[in-house]
Amino acid sequence: MAAIVSRCALYHDPAQQERYNARISDLEGQEMNVEQYMTELGQQARDASRLVARADSGLKNRALLAMAEAIDSSRDALAAANQLDLDAARANGLDDAMVDRLALKPATIDTMVEGLRQVAGLPDPVGAITDLNYRPSGIQVGKMRVPLGVIGIIYESRPNVTVEAASLCLKSGNATILRGGSEAIHSNQAVAACIRQGLRETGLPETAVQVVETTDRAAVGALITMPEFVDVIVPRGGKGLIERISRDAKVTVIKHLDGICHIYIDDQADKTKAINVAINAKTHRYGTCNTMETLLVNSAVAAEILPELAERYQGLGVELRGCAQTLEVLPQIVAATDVDWSTEYLAPILAIKLVDDMAEAIAHINRYGSHHTDCIITENYTKSRAFLLEVDSSSVMVNTSTRFADGFEYGLGAEIGISTDKIHARGPVGLNGLTSEKYVVLGDGHIRQ
Amino acid sequence: MAAIVSRCALYHDPAQQERYNARISDLEGQEMNVEQYMTELGQQARDASRLVARADSGLKNRALLAMAEAIDSSRDALAAANQLDLDAARANGLDDAMVDRLALKPATIDTMVEGLRQVAGLPDPVGAITDLNYRPSGIQVGKMRVPLGVIGIIYESRPNVTVEAASLCLKSGNATILRGGSEAIHSNQAVAACIRQGLRETGLPETAVQVVETTDRAAVGALITMPEFVDVIVPRGGKGLIERISRDAKVTVIKHLDGICHIYIDDQADKTKAINVAINAKTHRYGTCNTMETLLVNSAVAAEILPELAERYQGLGVELRGCAQTLEVLPQIVAATDVDWSTEYLAPILAIKLVDDMAEAIAHINRYGSHHTDCIITENYTKSRAFLLEVDSSSVMVNTSTRFADGFEYGLGAEIGISTDKIHARGPVGLNGLTSEKYVVLGDGHIRQ
Repeated sequence: MAAIVSRCALYHDPAQQERYNARISDLEGQEMNVEQYMTELGQQARDASRLVARADSGLKNRALLAMAEAIDSSRDALAAANQLDLDAARANGLDDAMVDRLALKPATIDTMVEGLRQVAGLPDPVGAITDLNYRPSGIQVGKMRVPLGVIGIIYESRPNVTVEAASLCLKSGNATILRGGSEAIHSNQAVAACIRQGLRETGLPETAVQVVETTDRAAVGALITMPEFVDVIVPRGGKGLIERISRDAKVTVIKHLDGICHIYIDDQADKTKAINVAINAKTHRYGTCNTMETLLVNSAVAAEILPELAERYQGLGVELRGCAQTLEVLPQIVAATDVDWSTEYLAPILAIKLVDDMAEAIAHINRYGSHHTDCIITENYTKSRAFLLEVDSSSVMVNTSTRFADGFEYGLGAEIGISTDKIHARGPVGLNGLTSEKYVVLGDGHIRQ
Repeated sequence: MAAIVSRCALYHDPAQQERYNARISDLEGQEMNVEQYMTELGQQARDASRLVARADSGLKNRALLAMAEAIDSSRDALAAANQLDLDAARANGLDDAMVDRLALKPATIDTMVEGLRQVAGLPDPVGAITDLNYRPSGIQVGKMRVPLGVIGIIYESRPNVTVEAASLCLKSGNATILRGGSEAIHSNQAVAACIRQGLRETGLPETAVQVVETTDRAAVGALITMPEFVDVIVPRGGKGLIERISRDAKVTVIKHLDGICHIYIDDQADKTKAINVAINAKTHRYGTCNTMETLLVNSAVAAEILPELAERYQGLGVELRGCAQTLEVLPQIVAATDVDWSTEYLAPILAIKLVDDMAEAIAHINRYGSHHTDCIITENYTKSRAFLLEVDSSSVMVNTSTRFADGFEYGLGAEIGISTDKIHARGPVGLNGLTSEKYVVLGDGHIRQ
């Protein structure tokens, strides 16, 4: 098998390190091919998923807290493993931003520990029965929330995703197979060791969370084409990764594609709200998927609102690009091209387009947007209702910053991503998005007439 | 294009017939290939879906009632078209049961008309906002139910499925592309003409419901691999069809696989309930997916329950096949083989297996079942709770006939199928299963801190 993780010091417990070394030697010695290896992980995950699905909340929470403890007390081992990745990244000429994303700083580890404790504190969705009602036949019919089974997660660089994803999947009663970026392989394996320790200490199967131990790309191809072992794939990364996985996968993919978010300032907008929200949605953070990328302004109020707004953007260092009509109001900015309307800048750049009415704004959003998050600023009741209904995005807002599109802000407790798809899960995906519902039917000897 | 539908008399309105003839001639004359043709249907469906998604309940209901009216007043044209299919079926040597399924009898047409009126009377799920709550930030966050977009339906023989599927998709705000069996092509086109008439009369686009006009199998291949035009596929038919489609589809498939349903009679079952439910679940109807196919009996009560139960089954003409232990109690029946445990008989045949405890029953169900519907008969509280939690099926029941697993019985009003899958929809799929939810966020100039 190509590129198996090197035998690094992952454990502070010598016996654990010995077991890990033996496992890696086995893999190397057997020259096991990647498909066999992934099939083995898949079968183990499927078996473990049955036990995790039945684990009660207390057991799952104890495992999450034990993982937090293991990470908290493995800071040296984590730092050593991370150093191997950082050295390799620098040797491979990765840029500073990439190296920074890879670094497991003490604060990052604090966040991982705290995140695990928070997930332990969330309500357990599994087994919740809702809508249990009597039917005319006399039977009671309700729905019980149940885990999906096995979730495959494919992600890039940041090693803390390993903990976030594993904890949400475990809490929702699912087994997970995680496939992180090759540049973080040592860090991810060190984190995986802590996760396994937490599982083992509480009596849950270690195979409930498995982090793929090879950087061979064939592992991804295998993971997304094993419907017998994997029920859903959650890719977390760039658009290219997600499109590739969606194209080739043989199971449902919960897609988190790009966020080309819009704010439409209506001719009946309150000017102060419009400016405050438009500033916040663009400048609160530049690199997030719920950041506004295109501002649509009703041409009737452009002259009133845009000059003041542009001054504030420019004071904050935001580059503005406008359509021909916008340039008439803001002659100092550069012209936007068609490419701008479908670009997720993730940077201090904003495209501005004037529209004649809400219908034109909605048509633009449904055509150029990414079905992520879009907002209207208006005081008009009828238009707010129509906008909510007609914009085909995972979050549709009135008079609110797009930056609120987030699992925590929505009250989900945590999120594994924001689905821009319509099937199964849409918008921020929390614990419920990683579950399904089965029907439960209670009777007293009822038969069908 | 191969095997385009022949130019038959579908319409009582000569002008309509003329338009249809011209359309077919166009298709024949152009030698349009199937991929081009399906792409055209797909684009038309995508365009229509935007209009249907925004159509209000009154408009959709008027269209459904107009379709009912069109079918009711086109009985002669429907019978003439159906006769072409029946003649072809007999000429092709189809067996009587198949020919019977194909026949559009007056009672079948009555059911179609009545079905359309019932769907018009169901509550409209689209636009319903739930869980709209204030968050600590001051924003209000809720979920709005929205259509999926375009639904592709692939089905076999029975032409009344055309109406059922079209009406449920329209009511839930979706456009549909329907691909029926080649043996029903004339009947389906005649039904499609009535559907189009209803859409046209109420001002909805006729392309909101399109019935594929070619019997070329390549049409199916195209339909399931156009994620840009089709959002979800619902196959209705045999296991072979569904497995083939699931394997090749590039979009989510709402699968209705086989129903290998179990009843487990616990050692703490009430004998009368056990016998009544077991008789009903097997003999109420033999050909339905929610009919029991395997009976599991706790060995401690086998001698008490099985002889009386067997006598009743045999009086009703049900063939019994038992495991070795069962044969000790019922020496008169034949031995079951391993194949029996994973067979959906759809016939008056029942496999019986003795188990030592509930755990063995659950293990058998999760291994050999089809995750459709399974039931425990017990008076024991703890076991009923554990069975509900641990059996991994779309419907899990206590002391109730499996025959209740049905959209009408569950209060969904109607169903497009029963999903044995976990993603998106599970169990009977009604109007809600053909929709998704987007987040709606209401604020008053709120910005993220």
